[in-house]
Amino acid sequence: MSFADRLDAAVRAVKNPCLVGIDPHVDLLPPEFEAARDARAPRAERAAEVQRFCTELIDVCASRVAAIKPQSAFFELFGADGAVAWEAVVAHAHKKGLLVIGDVKRGDIASTAAAYASALLEGLPGTDKDSLCDAITVNPYLGEDALQPFVEACARSGKGIYVLVRTSNPGSPRFQLRGDPPLAYEVADVVRALGAPLVGRSGWSSVGAVVGATHAAELCAFRERLPETPLLLPGYGAQGATAADLAGAFPGPGPSGALVNSARGIAFAHRAGPHAGRPWKDAAAAALSDMIAEVGRALAERPLRHAR
Amino acid sequence: MSFADRLDAAVRAVKNPCLVGIDPHVDLLPPEFEAARDARAPRAERAAEVQRFCTELIDVCASRVAAIKPQSAFFELFGADGAVAWEAVVAHAHKKGLLVIGDVKRGDIASTAAAYASALLEGLPGTDKDSLCDAITVNPYLGEDALQPFVEACARSGKGIYVLVRTSNPGSPRFQLRGDPPLAYEVADVVRALGAPLVGRSGWSSVGAVVGATHAAELCAFRERLPETPLLLPGYGAQGATAADLAGAFPGPGPSGALVNSARGIAFAHRAGPHAGRPWKDAAAAALSDMIAEVGRALAERPLRHAR
Repeated sequence: MSFADRLDAAVRAVKNPCLVGIDPHVDLLPPEFEAARDARAPRAERAAEVQRFCTELIDVCASRVAAIKPQSAFFELFGADGAVAWEAVVAHAHKKGLLVIGDVKRGDIASTAAAYASALLEGLPGTDKDSLCDAITVNPYLGEDALQPFVEACARSGKGIYVLVRTSNPGSPRFQLRGDPPLAYEVADVVRALGAPLVGRSGWSSVGAVVGATHAAELCAFRERLPETPLLLPGYGAQGATAADLAGAFPGPGPSGALVNSARGIAFAHRAGPHAGRPWKDAAAAALSDMIAEVGRALAERPLRHAR
Repeated sequence: MSFADRLDAAVRAVKNPCLVGIDPHVDLLPPEFEAARDARAPRAERAAEVQRFCTELIDVCASRVAAIKPQSAFFELFGADGAVAWEAVVAHAHKKGLLVIGDVKRGDIASTAAAYASALLEGLPGTDKDSLCDAITVNPYLGEDALQPFVEACARSGKGIYVLVRTSNPGSPRFQLRGDPPLAYEVADVVRALGAPLVGRSGWSSVGAVVGATHAAELCAFRERLPETPLLLPGYGAQGATAADLAGAFPGPGPSGALVNSARGIAFAHRAGPHAGRPWKDAAAAALSDMIAEVGRALAERPLRHAR
């Protein structure tokens, strides 16, 4: 069963397209995880505290969303100890029935790209398959031939990728909108072509695209240009996009076709927003409820311009 | 002392601009490292074999070149065990007096980019500083604001980055040459501007650029557009570029201003080329001698169009 089909089934089961980003910024962790910030503590102990936070956050999300998206950088901060924590966190999410989209933004050429794909999606013989990602994010700058080894790994292993097409940061237009049509649209065309052979029974490809949800006006254009491509929409919540901004990414009446990511808005809901001051897990659970409800309302209320 | 100044001094000391890529493709390792390929062996044992190969290759290079460039993907293939090997290999290179350019091609926004920079260049308090890189490769697709945290980390820590500007793979033009002037030139302008405050006593910035050496005709244009930017030139040897192709990247009579990378051509010289069939370390040492001589000849014979 392809990644796209597994994701589609999981999204339909939970009846929402919400994705929880697991970005364990050490400075933002709740007071219970103070040991993660202790500069005198051994690195392995600090990484274990980060791991404990992530697994508890995953428990908050289990059965409520289809997938989580851990951010590699915050694990790499702890070097080899962080890599141990990463594998444990991914495996824990799988044990809890969640799909895992590794936010690693890797990209390289030829055999090096193949090694990244193998490392994160396929694993060596004997690797605990639960510690591997279901999909990863990939950077397209090097070109179509640099994406190809990732696509081949997806075809072999039933895994997926999300290619960065349009990101939500303020400085993204200078490079991503260069040319006519702009680079991001050219990248989208490559994503569609690479993904065409990997369209599953759900109608969705296992080659997805990251499209920044802060660009509401562009979302419909990307949705039309990428009719079989699952989208990953960052920017919800802490980065400023509302549920209404991103409804255009969903082609049908249901929650299929895109994932709406929130990271800090869930994990660190105890620090800011309507649930600030509550115990962190209660705050995270409440913020997730809010997000599921808000996204659900936006999908129910939108005009169905893109229905297939 | 800035990365650029340390690199410039190291290159002047060895009198050549050669960079040895440490890309431990498991399938290409010499027979002595057969255990790295044993699918039934524990992952940690296999990673330890990869580490042993890399440290022995580093011993071949020590005192002969200024720097090595380990490729992260081939370590990540072994998961957390590969991360242990990576740190050990980087530390070993430092003990042997070599600078280390981590070929990680990372890139992300804001606090995530800062976490990558911290992870690879600065380390947590208590981290063995020898296990951190002197510089890393960085992907520019997300934009100038996504590069900024890496530059700030370089300013704080005396480390460096090499931003991917123009890569040497056949599929690179479609995205990298999009627009007029092409995207790669726009990225180069950003690299120059970001690097301007980090120009050291040597006259070189600690913000460098990767420019594919298979594009000989473009090299002079990038050299002129990036007068204070150290270049990293992949593509020598196995990827088809000759020493003469890349001489245009050097502005003065000496070896300063660019690094010429060869990976497979050195590490796996026992498999192909004039030294095939010899014991692997002898073959690697001989291939490195050939490369140093060939690059030296090309620099001595070139017209000094770019002298400053």
